[in-house]
Amino acid sequence: MPEANSKTECFVGVDLGGTKILAGVFDGQLNCIGRNKMSTKADRGAEAVIERIARCVQDAVDECDLNLKQVRGIGIGAPGAIDPESGKVVFAPNLQWKDVALKKQLEKHLDIPVFLENDCAGAMLGVYETELQAKPKYVVGIFLGTGIGGGIVIDGKLYTGFNGSAGEIGHMVIELEGPKCNCGNRGCFEAIASRTAIFRQIHNAIKDGQKTLLTEMLGNDLNDLRSGDLRKAIRKGDNFVKKIVEEVAHHTGIAVANLINIFNPEVVILGGGVIDALQDEMMPIIIDTAKNTAMSGTIKGIQIMASKLGDNAGITGGAVLAKKQTK
Amino acid sequence: MPEANSKTECFVGVDLGGTKILAGVFDGQLNCIGRNKMSTKADRGAEAVIERIARCVQDAVDECDLNLKQVRGIGIGAPGAIDPESGKVVFAPNLQWKDVALKKQLEKHLDIPVFLENDCAGAMLGVYETELQAKPKYVVGIFLGTGIGGGIVIDGKLYTGFNGSAGEIGHMVIELEGPKCNCGNRGCFEAIASRTAIFRQIHNAIKDGQKTLLTEMLGNDLNDLRSGDLRKAIRKGDNFVKKIVEEVAHHTGIAVANLINIFNPEVVILGGGVIDALQDEMMPIIIDTAKNTAMSGTIKGIQIMASKLGDNAGITGGAVLAKKQTK
Repeated sequence: MPEANSKTECFVGVDLGGTKILAGVFDGQLNCIGRNKMSTKADRGAEAVIERIARCVQDAVDECDLNLKQVRGIGIGAPGAIDPESGKVVFAPNLQWKDVALKKQLEKHLDIPVFLENDCAGAMLGVYETELQAKPKYVVGIFLGTGIGGGIVIDGKLYTGFNGSAGEIGHMVIELEGPKCNCGNRGCFEAIASRTAIFRQIHNAIKDGQKTLLTEMLGNDLNDLRSGDLRKAIRKGDNFVKKIVEEVAHHTGIAVANLINIFNPEVVILGGGVIDALQDEMMPIIIDTAKNTAMSGTIKGIQIMASKLGDNAGITGGAVLAKKQTK
Repeated sequence: MPEANSKTECFVGVDLGGTKILAGVFDGQLNCIGRNKMSTKADRGAEAVIERIARCVQDAVDECDLNLKQVRGIGIGAPGAIDPESGKVVFAPNLQWKDVALKKQLEKHLDIPVFLENDCAGAMLGVYETELQAKPKYVVGIFLGTGIGGGIVIDGKLYTGFNGSAGEIGHMVIELEGPKCNCGNRGCFEAIASRTAIFRQIHNAIKDGQKTLLTEMLGNDLNDLRSGDLRKAIRKGDNFVKKIVEEVAHHTGIAVANLINIFNPEVVILGGGVIDALQDEMMPIIIDTAKNTAMSGTIKGIQIMASKLGDNAGITGGAVLAKKQTK
């Protein structure tokens, strides 16, 4: 009974975001056997959010016809600076968290070992362990979503630096005096190429009288705008949206070149909601720009590609983390 | 006779630049006991340059009352992409070299083992081994001279990446559509904050009628302008030069913050001719800007400082390399 057997031990990965909690149940071979999604409701405070994470995990496990006793470990990626040793979220601006003992409190709720990682480092771990079969020694992962984050692999291991916060590539300034970023600086990669940055540009242009299919699809306030809507508009012939997405792809390509010049990795892998939705539109431009911009010596033999894990990178990374730690 | 004893074995470090060759003789404890400088004359071709390197080394050794038989090894830092295994300079635009067998040819001239490294990686090695006594695990070195290069230490070892070309931080774009760089792109850190970039700004401003003490000191064409002249002009009250240097320091601070956000190193160390000459003017601004720009989580406990090795970083690194390799 291989199926029943593999079901007797499972791992849960959690991707904790500013707006949603995603929990995935994985078998011992790290196949995803079920997912559950819940809104974060960060405004209710850390305790309430941790209760929601616990419920989200319970529901995901239950949905797979499993019970919590079969879960050997839970790995969580949290959006911000974390301390893996103490299991604390040191600082997570999107959650308005500071020094939250996430590991300890969630273990109290569920009575299962919990392991903590930064969300993008976690996503990198998921991509590296399940998607990059050749196990390249040096990898840079770039995740474009609401914000932009990075994950770095050096010598086949996650690289997190001196304070555990390496990989904040979203706050690499690529345009001195560029658009204002949430971090307070100007011209960060995230302020230019994240979903937030794209949507801001679109909103501003509409305010200035720009016509676009997006308003026909979603109404004038674009309340429910998602990355996928941009793809739909482009495929229907919306040149305004096309131009914005192409420019963002070009700027992302320059950021990729920066990271290639600095790290000289073997593989650059791009993921996150924006890439997931706009892969066909963006990846050719990103690859072209990066190859034309990086120093000729550094680019040789380097692969630049999109992750196939999409939204599942974070939960997969959580499961990988849990599996590694409970070995 | 400890002195005679230490003199019986020595190492030579060579810093091969586009305009000058610097050779240093080091005792077994890596103290510099003599230096020699020669112009490169790159336009005469690789063979002639390699002959000049050999002469520069011979003269430096002779000047120390030593002979070549006492030199256990020679370490060279070359400005470009190198292949340490084959000892070839793969590509060095400033020398107009492509696939030059520097190690082999120089060994033929001198009959001493020769070891090759990229110039900035070599300078980083020199700084790390002789200056950073605490042996931090993660270090980023930034060298501002004619161009800008970097050296990276991870886990206490020089990090050179997949093709051996990691650390090309001078070609990190920090201003989309910024000033043109020699590499063909726009807005590279090097095109904004290298000596070349500073001098270009000064020349252009003078052409536009800007008054400065520099022309009084050096004549209208500023033919012999050096970084040290900027310091002299600033100390004599030249506000135009002061403003340019302060702006360059500010932009360098932003580049430092980028590298801190990406690498989260323990130490950032700045060196090269520009920093050597303008340390007092630039370092306070670089440190302030970097601390204000980097993410609050990443900056904690990180030291940002100037190297004391100055122009000797490259030759020291060469000697370290030679000593390590001949052990």
